Amino acid sequence: MTSDSPSLTPGQLLARGVARHLRDRDFMCLEEFSPERGKRVDVMAMGPRGEVWIVECKSSRADFASDCKWQGYLEWSDRYFWAVDAAFPVDLLPPDTGLILADPFGADIVRMPEATPLAPARRKALTLRFARAAAMRLQVLRDPMSIA
Amino acid sequence: MTSDSPSLTPGQLLARGVARHLRDRDFMCLEEFSPERGKRVDVMAMGPRGEVWIVECKSSRADFASDCKWQGYLEWSDRYFWAVDAAFPVDLLPPDTGLILADPFGADIVRMPEATPLAPARRKALTLRFARAAAMRLQVLRDPMSIA
Repeated sequence: MTSDSPSLTPGQLLARGVARHLRDRDFMCLEEFSPERGKRVDVMAMGPRGEVWIVECKSSRADFASDCKWQGYLEWSDRYFWAVDAAFPVDLLPPDTGLILADPFGADIVRMPEATPLAPARRKALTLRFARAAAMRLQVLRDPMSIA
Repeated sequence: MTSDSPSLTPGQLLARGVARHLRDRDFMCLEEFSPERGKRVDVMAMGPRGEVWIVECKSSRADFASDCKWQGYLEWSDRYFWAVDAAFPVDLLPPDTGLILADPFGADIVRMPEATPLAPARRKALTLRFARAAAMRLQVLRDPMSIA
């Protein structure tokens, strides 16, 4: 899709654009993050006051239609968003969820959902899990021999 | 010092060995982390239950002697360690601090210090700061264009 990212899927390219935009909003993102065993979200973002946002990236109607897990993610975030490209039929999406229009290079929040704050214990556990996952991935990139 | 890391300083090579060892202990590390504005520690490690360890890496007696800041780090960790190589005169180090013998490829904890647990509010703030810093660095490495 772009010359600098031959190996990213359409969904991962949307996630990249989402992460760029969210960082501009001071939310730091981790892609393909597992909030608990058996769950994996496309983007988890951590705000300056510990806000937790989840963004699922859908590259097509079929991609959305085949997702039977998303409602299970609502309870793992303060706000839940879909990220889609300009061609996506957005009327398919539940109106009380967030909506982000994205491309590989950026994104915009079109609809901000109501916040449903996490319980403190879950926020604490998620933040720690996010912290450790991000640090571990960073180490793998910076010091690949560390996992040899 | 090693062919695969021409640009790392002696202290950074110790930090790399420390991070490798701590990960084996299920502690995830972030190097050159700032727990608050104006402070920067060589290694901050986050354990599975949110334990916070700080490791300062000293490559020589002079490096240790010139450090007038380390006592300010004690209050930012549950346990504080020095990491030094086998040639370092360890008798210089305060006996109630932790001691790690390290080289660029690994490390061992020689002396485990007593834990002085952080207050919950500080642990919470540190964990969030660590999480966001790690995610931001990861994004810079994975998507360098994001900061262009």
